[in-house]
Amino acid sequence: MDIRELYIKPQEGDKVTFLGRVRSNRAGKKVSFLVVNDGTTMNDAQIVYKDDLKNYEEASKIRVGSIVEIQGTIHLTPDRPQPFEIQATSIECLDEAIEAYPLQKKEHSLEYLREIAQLRARTKTFNAVFKIRSIAAFAIHKFFQSQNFVYVNTPIITSNDAEGAGEEFGVITYDSKNNPLTTDFFNKKASLTVSGQLNAEAFAQAFKKVYTFGPTFRAEQSFTSRHASEFWMIEPEVAFNTLEDNIELIEAMLKYIFKDVLENAKEELEFLDENVEKGLVQKLEKLSTEKYVVNTYEQVIEMLKKAVDNKEVNFENNDIHFGLDLGTEHERYLCEVINKAPTFVTNYPKDIKAFYMKLNPDEKTVAAVDLLVPGIGELVGGSEREGSFDKLMKRCEQMGIDPTELDWYIQLRQYGYYKSAGFGLGFERLIMYITGMTNIRDVIPYPRTPKNLLF
Amino acid sequence: MDIRELYIKPQEGDKVTFLGRVRSNRAGKKVSFLVVNDGTTMNDAQIVYKDDLKNYEEASKIRVGSIVEIQGTIHLTPDRPQPFEIQATSIECLDEAIEAYPLQKKEHSLEYLREIAQLRARTKTFNAVFKIRSIAAFAIHKFFQSQNFVYVNTPIITSNDAEGAGEEFGVITYDSKNNPLTTDFFNKKASLTVSGQLNAEAFAQAFKKVYTFGPTFRAEQSFTSRHASEFWMIEPEVAFNTLEDNIELIEAMLKYIFKDVLENAKEELEFLDENVEKGLVQKLEKLSTEKYVVNTYEQVIEMLKKAVDNKEVNFENNDIHFGLDLGTEHERYLCEVINKAPTFVTNYPKDIKAFYMKLNPDEKTVAAVDLLVPGIGELVGGSEREGSFDKLMKRCEQMGIDPTELDWYIQLRQYGYYKSAGFGLGFERLIMYITGMTNIRDVIPYPRTPKNLLF
Repeated sequence: MDIRELYIKPQEGDKVTFLGRVRSNRAGKKVSFLVVNDGTTMNDAQIVYKDDLKNYEEASKIRVGSIVEIQGTIHLTPDRPQPFEIQATSIECLDEAIEAYPLQKKEHSLEYLREIAQLRARTKTFNAVFKIRSIAAFAIHKFFQSQNFVYVNTPIITSNDAEGAGEEFGVITYDSKNNPLTTDFFNKKASLTVSGQLNAEAFAQAFKKVYTFGPTFRAEQSFTSRHASEFWMIEPEVAFNTLEDNIELIEAMLKYIFKDVLENAKEELEFLDENVEKGLVQKLEKLSTEKYVVNTYEQVIEMLKKAVDNKEVNFENNDIHFGLDLGTEHERYLCEVINKAPTFVTNYPKDIKAFYMKLNPDEKTVAAVDLLVPGIGELVGGSEREGSFDKLMKRCEQMGIDPTELDWYIQLRQYGYYKSAGFGLGFERLIMYITGMTNIRDVIPYPRTPKNLLF
Repeated sequence: MDIRELYIKPQEGDKVTFLGRVRSNRAGKKVSFLVVNDGTTMNDAQIVYKDDLKNYEEASKIRVGSIVEIQGTIHLTPDRPQPFEIQATSIECLDEAIEAYPLQKKEHSLEYLREIAQLRARTKTFNAVFKIRSIAAFAIHKFFQSQNFVYVNTPIITSNDAEGAGEEFGVITYDSKNNPLTTDFFNKKASLTVSGQLNAEAFAQAFKKVYTFGPTFRAEQSFTSRHASEFWMIEPEVAFNTLEDNIELIEAMLKYIFKDVLENAKEELEFLDENVEKGLVQKLEKLSTEKYVVNTYEQVIEMLKKAVDNKEVNFENNDIHFGLDLGTEHERYLCEVINKAPTFVTNYPKDIKAFYMKLNPDEKTVAAVDLLVPGIGELVGGSEREGSFDKLMKRCEQMGIDPTELDWYIQLRQYGYYKSAGFGLGFERLIMYITGMTNIRDVIPYPRTPKNLLF
């Protein structure tokens, strides 16, 4: 049985058999203690064994990391931290770890554990983080599927240069002499996608409500704790949604995920609350119920300017003016100090946003929305999409985008166009926010960053 | 409201308002008929409008593909194929399609529709296929999550050459003069993954039960109807599973998916049964209950040899002998003619299988299992993994694999190794099997194949 099952309703005297990995083995002359975990729960099994065990000598030498099969009897221990212990009647070592097993009982730094990413999920911290990642991923599917959204797998290899932004990786083949062939396989230059949005938009025109959930890529030389070269995005797109509908959907989705994780990852969150971010559970409870703030970009500029003018804050960039592309310092000050809550910022200046965003009647802003959250900054970015063929062509021109490269996308406006809105949620940023981990390398199983391609 | 909702409990005289896309507009002098669909269901809304409508003239000219808002009253029509029609009180054209809208009412070939992949989900066939794809994807998550499997996002960009098989795409960056830089970004050569298995195996050592669900890639010049350059795989891995457990898990997973789709995609399956593969629903019902056959590879060779010797069949390759890598013709004959059922084939010769598969005591076969299904051939491939460090090193040597390239993976056998088994399911092949579509290009939203990179 799994150790997770042992914890469901342990009864005094119950006979149990289970497998697990040794976390520690504290051997005495007559009584010894083994701590075993099998990854199905944060909880360990505490095993007591005595010198009446026929292989006592041998058992007391089992190394950390080894796999053991335990037979024994449950003894309830209501006055100790763990609710029960196992009195072993048999301990068998199924596979012995070498002495140089890299995860000994002491504390290891996150940096060290990144170098052994193939093993780090065996530690409690990463067991919790990756379990929560899995639960959150499933929560996202449940949220959208229960509302009849269609899951669309948008392509990874693409010839679109979607946003005119984000550096792209090239996809190539090699000839027999190992020379790169850049256009040979597809008859054109191929890249790794930076976003599935344009492809998803076409499907929203067919199904009304769709979402993607897949990997995206950036070939930028970013060495920050919030950027990775490969990360997963969720990109919902809904025909007929307005900016307000979009905001409602973002908030509903996030609250659903927070509630789901609070319900289904109790042990994991409690562990992280104690060891990684104090107050984590309370933060998530608040996030799953409180109302998020909505500010226009113009209001934000005013508020930040006032704070600078009144010397309430000193940013690295104090030149706050309409047209400024907000930095993380501004975003975090807004939601951490001014609003003390997740904050939607709407109607950004058109010049700092993507070509496909819907131009507002003022002709200087677009119907965009970003969600900024304390500790992270931008978590979600979205917009209404420009529905007018002519306006979209004009935006391409103004922004130096060759519309023939994206004709299939732009032409959607000629083939009967529902208006449409959607957003992108960076999955790793969400997991950082939920787990309290502060480096993106620690929330994705095998992180890819510049100069770093292990495993 | 969605047209899907209209169909839930239509009541005579109910007033309704909805949006949709025009499938056809058959205009008469006094009475006209509009067929509208919004993608939320296979069913269309049939709208009757008469010359008392204030914009009758205008409405009768609305083109196919355009977006309309309809207000009207439900009139039940129990003696007609559709259960109700809408008597329109208002028809407003929200966005007009151009006259050259590529999806006119006539039948279009699948080949033609591939060239307009951004629009094809608007047709009934592709609406059904991609809805089923979404439902099946969710069913897979439900199946594994309900059994406490942890979903692991294994990396897409990799430096592993996982199976020593499968041609890989290279991942590069470009310098400012557009010259390819093959090792610059990561300081080593990078490729697109052909399988997440090795990475998932390491996580199974931590969590016991894990699964992946993500894109994988092959740079092979395959122009068949069953191969794509980019496709999605599901790769579960379970610590302590034997070959028999693995077979049980495969069968349970498939039956769960078939049942789920039968329950949640009734309309879509009925449409495909009528238009794509006669008997589809019955096939899936049978597949979700019947017992699948299990044969050893040795038995299969005997049966095929006997069939050839008795002139019951004439393969392109009639040289049936132990060691033969079964072709699709052999696989299909086995499950379509001999067994007439999905067939697990076990214990293949080691020389035709991957290095990581567990060597059987006979030392000539490995504990591998493929699932072959009628009409498709191989749907699933899996195995127990070699747990012995020494044997695995020896297999690498025999197969010309440099073990230092995969040291992190091979070393798992030194760090306390649960035995482990898992498999890979090609998601597109599964969707072909469920929908009856015979070309892989028609079950993935934007297919990528050699010389083909559109959208």
